[in-house]
Amino acid sequence: MATQSHRLTEQASGVYIIAATPFDDQGEVDLYSIDSLTDFYLEKGVTGFTILGMMGEAPKLSEAETTLVMERILKRVDARVPVVVGVSHSSNRHIERLSKEAMDLGAAGVMVAPVPNLKTDEQVYGYYANIAKLLGRGTPICLQDFPQATGVHTSVSVINRLIDEFEQVVMLKHEDFPGMRKLSQVRHDSETSGRRRISILVGNGGLFLPQEILRGADGAMTGFAFPEMLVQVCQLFSEGKSEAAEDLFNIYLPLLRHEFQYGIGLALRKETLRRRGAIRSAFVRKPGPVLDARDHEELTRLIARQEKALA
Amino acid sequence: MATQSHRLTEQASGVYIIAATPFDDQGEVDLYSIDSLTDFYLEKGVTGFTILGMMGEAPKLSEAETTLVMERILKRVDARVPVVVGVSHSSNRHIERLSKEAMDLGAAGVMVAPVPNLKTDEQVYGYYANIAKLLGRGTPICLQDFPQATGVHTSVSVINRLIDEFEQVVMLKHEDFPGMRKLSQVRHDSETSGRRRISILVGNGGLFLPQEILRGADGAMTGFAFPEMLVQVCQLFSEGKSEAAEDLFNIYLPLLRHEFQYGIGLALRKETLRRRGAIRSAFVRKPGPVLDARDHEELTRLIARQEKALA
Amino acid sequence: MATQSHRLTEQASGVYIIAATPFDDQGEVDLYSIDSLTDFYLEKGVTGFTILGMMGEAPKLSEAETTLVMERILKRVDARVPVVVGVSHSSNRHIERLSKEAMDLGAAGVMVAPVPNLKTDEQVYGYYANIAKLLGRGTPICLQDFPQATGVHTSVSVINRLIDEFEQVVMLKHEDFPGMRKLSQVRHDSETSGRRRISILVGNGGLFLPQEILRGADGAMTGFAFPEMLVQVCQLFSEGKSEAAEDLFNIYLPLLRHEFQYGIGLALRKETLRRRGAIRSAFVRKPGPVLDARDHEELTRLIARQEKALA
Amino acid sequence: MATQSHRLTEQASGVYIIAATPFDDQGEVDLYSIDSLTDFYLEKGVTGFTILGMMGEAPKLSEAETTLVMERILKRVDARVPVVVGVSHSSNRHIERLSKEAMDLGAAGVMVAPVPNLKTDEQVYGYYANIAKLLGRGTPICLQDFPQATGVHTSVSVINRLIDEFEQVVMLKHEDFPGMRKLSQVRHDSETSGRRRISILVGNGGLFLPQEILRGADGAMTGFAFPEMLVQVCQLFSEGKSEAAEDLFNIYLPLLRHEFQYGIGLALRKETLRRRGAIRSAFVRKPGPVLDARDHEELTRLIARQEKALA
Repeated sequence: MATQSHRLTEQASGVYIIAATPFDDQGEVDLYSIDSLTDFYLEKGVTGFTILGMMGEAPKLSEAETTLVMERILKRVDARVPVVVGVSHSSNRHIERLSKEAMDLGAAGVMVAPVPNLKTDEQVYGYYANIAKLLGRGTPICLQDFPQATGVHTSVSVINRLIDEFEQVVMLKHEDFPGMRKLSQVRHDSETSGRRRISILVGNGGLFLPQEILRGADGAMTGFAFPEMLVQVCQLFSEGKSEAAEDLFNIYLPLLRHEFQYGIGLALRKETLRRRGAIRSAFVRKPGPVLDARDHEELTRLIARQEKALA
Repeated sequence: MATQSHRLTEQASGVYIIAATPFDDQGEVDLYSIDSLTDFYLEKGVTGFTILGMMGEAPKLSEAETTLVMERILKRVDARVPVVVGVSHSSNRHIERLSKEAMDLGAAGVMVAPVPNLKTDEQVYGYYANIAKLLGRGTPICLQDFPQATGVHTSVSVINRLIDEFEQVVMLKHEDFPGMRKLSQVRHDSETSGRRRISILVGNGGLFLPQEILRGADGAMTGFAFPEMLVQVCQLFSEGKSEAAEDLFNIYLPLLRHEFQYGIGLALRKETLRRRGAIRSAFVRKPGPVLDARDHEELTRLIARQEKALA
Repeated sequence: MATQSHRLTEQASGVYIIAATPFDDQGEVDLYSIDSLTDFYLEKGVTGFTILGMMGEAPKLSEAETTLVMERILKRVDARVPVVVGVSHSSNRHIERLSKEAMDLGAAGVMVAPVPNLKTDEQVYGYYANIAKLLGRGTPICLQDFPQATGVHTSVSVINRLIDEFEQVVMLKHEDFPGMRKLSQVRHDSETSGRRRISILVGNGGLFLPQEILRGADGAMTGFAFPEMLVQVCQLFSEGKSEAAEDLFNIYLPLLRHEFQYGIGLALRKETLRRRGAIRSAFVRKPGPVLDARDHEELTRLIARQEKALA
Repeated sequence: MATQSHRLTEQASGVYIIAATPFDDQGEVDLYSIDSLTDFYLEKGVTGFTILGMMGEAPKLSEAETTLVMERILKRVDARVPVVVGVSHSSNRHIERLSKEAMDLGAAGVMVAPVPNLKTDEQVYGYYANIAKLLGRGTPICLQDFPQATGVHTSVSVINRLIDEFEQVVMLKHEDFPGMRKLSQVRHDSETSGRRRISILVGNGGLFLPQEILRGADGAMTGFAFPEMLVQVCQLFSEGKSEAAEDLFNIYLPLLRHEFQYGIGLALRKETLRRRGAIRSAFVRKPGPVLDARDHEELTRLIARQEKALA
């Protein structure tokens, strides 16, 4: 279904939006909102999508819902931009099955975070090596390096070894915190040693996006509810206008920092997307964060201040 | 399907075996071995079953496999003993759905471990209270208190509050470590304050079973590959023969301690069950522990020593 | 030595600067820089000091150095503003001894973070209750609630219970993350239930200072290297100029967010203080973070951008 | 002061007892009991001492007490057996100072556990490499690999690299859990690759001592309150009587397993040592575990059962 040009490669850059999964107020998957949200992201100019990630509440979907959401988004995107599918799971069989399903449906690649309880470099390497062999060369892989959520630390030497041994490893979602030196090291190692240069997109809500781009990141993979800013910032940086890029970024920084709060950040994002008309309900599946009146009021104030600053 | 007498109650005692899920050497669910393992456990005299727990590799089963395993075991047990079904999941909707399915198929009750990231007493209480309301009075609940795996600490006061407010909370799987004082406190609080006395079965491989029974536990919920010992020890204790019970326990303690090792313990258990003819393959789904030659040799020696001590 | 008016009370507000401990390039305590840094903080208008905290590298000082630093700062401050002394330690005897020494030297109160391995509400309460009894009514206590560093979660109900039972508990250093709802709850509970209202100063580098003041915080207890901003923001909020306050805050937010990085944040702060002439060396004791050329360049750029935005 | 023969080497084997630090009932260091405990350990035939470890409550001693305890034990031992001194600390300067003091007083070597927050192989290696360089070749080092307490995982490749680069690294205190395969790997790597073979002594209360000796461990470094068993077991193994060794071990296993409980285990050990006349008080410094009546009764029963089994 997808054209070959949308296979994820080391050249990927820009904004891969981490897509929310919209539910209705009863918690059922809302197909209408999937479409409207997909349109919203496309209109804002995102370069690609990452679906069924942690922020997409993937672990709370049934298998049928997982397929439904994946199909619906891929159909709506209609091969206009690449779509990466999160396939992290406690069972390798499941990762293999879901990856195959995703690629068959036209996904550009898959994103994999390690299972918990991997402790040493050898263990982390071994885990990813097994997955890479299981999926084969035909399935581009994005490594999700998010130790705050997984408890697993992926060292620069493990990343380099995976790059050297598996051509299907084409992207790093850089989400270690603090992690700027790690980013610089991965970049440095590819520049000085003839190592293949993979794509690095940054997460953590984009909190350090300008600094990370200046250190060699190729863009962002995050779910900030104002993706147009991320898009413009990446664009300005690519044009060499780093000061203008960061000026723009800083206008949004207060709200971006607000969304950066783990847990409740997802509820804030969905509510912001709802207010912007992108989805019909901000429902988060249980157990999950719920905004109270004070949270709503605070969000309203921050959005109003942002609008004023942009005016 | 199940008779009402098999509904899990506060009076539950003895040995609820944590059942392994048998796979063949290719990792497929092995229905033949499910039957033979079920028969094995029943022959050894277990009081009940707990299926689809962590040791049952439940998170590595697909939804269809989950149903398949549950149906097969429940059918084979044929209401001879109560079967508790592990339903822990990151989504409450899934817990609700799986619990309903289990109860409809004849389960005696469900076991629930908390999701990670619950930090305070209020949060742990809130989590379980929501689950209890969702499942309703008709679904007996066993609280799985296993902080080494979940990272969540369930205090005595939370346990007491849940006992007081939800009649469907009828059992505690006590698996905190070290946790003997907690066990004594829960017992003490029910004896002195008129609080409902629930069943307490102990986990952690049974490492402290004699001490825990003397502190008021009603038996064990664990997967030691020689369940006949657990059965006899509980029987002897119930007859007041605590010294004989502990003498017997101690003969098995070296091997039990060996199985107590997190991670590799599951592979050791499955291999022991295979050697005993209960299952056809010791396969553990990936990523998971794999025994090497040294591990096999060590296990052989420990089993031989145990047999000699029993002779 | 200190006047009674500097005893820490529930009315404390404004900016209690978390003071760095200056070393020379060989790692020896630099008394000259202690004086210059103390002067720097006072000139910037801080309301109080918090010394010997985690950012003050307190666990890396010898006992003699601890006394030396404490004496030197208290002497230099000369009772102009209150000084809170961090006394967290794995031994209660040490906390008692150091607290007595601090109070005798003129400290306004002490700050205590819990030891690791406290899990339940009862355990956290028990820990603090023991400390409060040990120190007595004459030693004002600031509770440091910083689970990211300690692994201990202090619930609202534990905080409330400590407020109710120990009059010496007069301040909460609020540093849970995300923690804004907790802040609101502590405030709400004191407003609606007749509970004593204690001072709440916020940490986490001040990343959410405006939002937290709007939720009822009384100020900041953090070590941002531009304390004059914190002072002005608190002042503007106290005058009801919340929009102007947040406008000012946001100019500094990019750098403040940069310092927020755990670990390396301390090296960035000390380097910034060095550049501003407040200390002579940015040395951090080993093991500890060291800035590389890229880190320096990045910091230079962020400071330059901040200066331009302020111009 | 110490003879050169007591410098710790790769040939170390047998039982290095982790010495408790005796206090009186008011919590003051009890010099009389230090002497009697030292005599007790020597009478039981230990090969060496490890003092000021975690079980020695080292982090709860003042600097003066640390020196006092170290001097007293070293004097009492009087160079009859080697004494290893725990010097783990958050500051490298402190490790250097304490190590020098220990070696000057006649210690055989020092034991170092890594600081928390080391995540990757490179970070763990870097930490230990810095310490090794700081202490120099003249100070034999025992690596304490105890991730359950430190949160740091030291991989086989890091251990091997340290062995290869630093001749002063002569011993591994193996305390990872489960960790038997790691032990086998370290041994295997030294046997097959011409790598220097260092001493490996096992911790974790000795819970797997027979298995670990069969896998190549040279003995135990733990604090079980019946050290004579550890001594005899090591002796029997060295004579090739592995079955007799394990038979003896298993008689003590129930009590040893009981002491294995983290936290309360220390209180149980001190109480057992008190009952055996080795120390005058079982006091543990606060915050710390305190035995209640039920704990005492349980301990009494387990000791009585052990005595009966030995009779």
